Amino acid sequence: MADLLVVGSVAFDTVRTPFGKADEVLGGSATYFSYAASFFTGVRLVAVVGADFPKAHLELLARRGVDLTGLQVADGPTFRWAGEYGYDLSEAKTLDTRLGVFADFRPTLPEPFRRTPFLFLANIDPDLQLNVLRKLERPRLCALDTMNFWIQGKREALQRVVAEVDALVVNDAEARMLTEEPNLVKAARRILGYGPRIVVIKRGEYGVLMATDGRFFFAPAFPLDSVYDPTGAGDTFAGGFMGALARAGTLDEAALRRAIVYGSVMASFTVEDFSLNRLLRLEPREIEERYHAFREMMRLEQ
Amino acid sequence: MADLLVVGSVAFDTVRTPFGKADEVLGGSATYFSYAASFFTGVRLVAVVGADFPKAHLELLARRGVDLTGLQVADGPTFRWAGEYGYDLSEAKTLDTRLGVFADFRPTLPEPFRRTPFLFLANIDPDLQLNVLRKLERPRLCALDTMNFWIQGKREALQRVVAEVDALVVNDAEARMLTEEPNLVKAARRILGYGPRIVVIKRGEYGVLMATDGRFFFAPAFPLDSVYDPTGAGDTFAGGFMGALARAGTLDEAALRRAIVYGSVMASFTVEDFSLNRLLRLEPREIEERYHAFREMMRLEQ
Repeated sequence: MADLLVVGSVAFDTVRTPFGKADEVLGGSATYFSYAASFFTGVRLVAVVGADFPKAHLELLARRGVDLTGLQVADGPTFRWAGEYGYDLSEAKTLDTRLGVFADFRPTLPEPFRRTPFLFLANIDPDLQLNVLRKLERPRLCALDTMNFWIQGKREALQRVVAEVDALVVNDAEARMLTEEPNLVKAARRILGYGPRIVVIKRGEYGVLMATDGRFFFAPAFPLDSVYDPTGAGDTFAGGFMGALARAGTLDEAALRRAIVYGSVMASFTVEDFSLNRLLRLEPREIEERYHAFREMMRLEQ
Repeated sequence: MADLLVVGSVAFDTVRTPFGKADEVLGGSATYFSYAASFFTGVRLVAVVGADFPKAHLELLARRGVDLTGLQVADGPTFRWAGEYGYDLSEAKTLDTRLGVFADFRPTLPEPFRRTPFLFLANIDPDLQLNVLRKLERPRLCALDTMNFWIQGKREALQRVVAEVDALVVNDAEARMLTEEPNLVKAARRILGYGPRIVVIKRGEYGVLMATDGRFFFAPAFPLDSVYDPTGAGDTFAGGFMGALARAGTLDEAALRRAIVYGSVMASFTVEDFSLNRLLRLEPREIEERYHAFREMMRLEQ
């Protein structure tokens, strides 16, 4: 049963970090998201690739049970992104973006996809996000990601779709930019005022902050000896978060908090290697082990 | 019963933040530490002030039961520090430091002080820290703070005293500088290898990380709507941490974790106003309320 629909990008990434380099490897928000979520629930993917996209990459997703009937193959090159990170790994410097077929992406939903209970609108044009959202028979939970490009360039369209989703999942810089409020606590409250009842703010190596109805929850990032490549960490987090929620079936505070930690668990694996390499060799047992390690690290009362 | 001894500075601070300015107000590591700790246990203070130091300031500490028999009054001016913060409030830019009588500070311990079970060596010359430590009949727990000045200028002396204490309490930049290791997880492990069995790394608005015997614990910073002045937050944290440990009487992992949160609670009050102003109007009831709020924010299993 496919419970979770993601609309986003599938791409080739070229990434340079102080620890190595990866050329034209599998990337994209919908890729990281769906692969991570597939450990928890059935996933439906809506995206576009070019004719140059290798079948082998699609088979990686298909083997995880990801439903690819919403994946369009268009004439032209697949979306390509190139970036590099300095030693602190906290922010990517974009070296090159070639949208290719992604420039004219118009998500189309196969008929059965319209009745998917959980929806994640990854970082794409907010007009397209709203369009997808309105095509769905009211989902149980709809979450949205965005980026500085849309906050600055299409603020009104973005505000329209933000007002209609249940959850916003953004990083701290985006939360500050969207609200024009430097204090993250006030920024989170302001976003709750826009409509969403859940705000999730990703803070990289400092973990995640969730605000719901005046309550705050903090999860740390997993203490890793080595972080090789943060690319995809945010989308992997979102995949683990939404996947765990779909699996739980409930949306109370306890379920949301556990999902935040599952998201953090999945992201902590992604950054251990380039592209999806760590996820490709991930065992479900390792997910539960790391979840328990998180719980121990956060436990105040023994 | 005075269970906790602190050796450090008492000073006048002049602080400028984007939200206001405070001139020649009460400050200093031993001041923030002892005032915060006094909510939990009896405190003995060893420091030096000049003849220019107002009695009213001392009475603030005396009224909290702080034992001032180890406070020296020397000829000359009291230590003065001036600094300013930008909008992110994460790091102070020092504008002026006038050591005054602090330059020749030689801590002397009244005889009864030698049998104090908990000792905090605030940020002073590591040779003086070692000297104090050796004068004590083996305390139950000795913790030490330091700063970049000593890490760069007196590394060998610092390593000697670090090897003899139970706990190191530093900020993230200091932990990285001391170990020459950018990864904070590896840095914490390396410090455990130097001798201490407890490493506490303060990360400002991102909270605190504690490493003990291969276990990690994370506490967030309290989500505040307004931070006015971070001066003294680290020393206040240490005062709450050590005070809560002295009050608990046990040093197991559960007690250490609760003490980390009490330290975070106290620091969250200090930053709400300039100098010790917020602590001066603090009610014990507020401490417990905020501790419970922390517990709720960190609770994974409901």
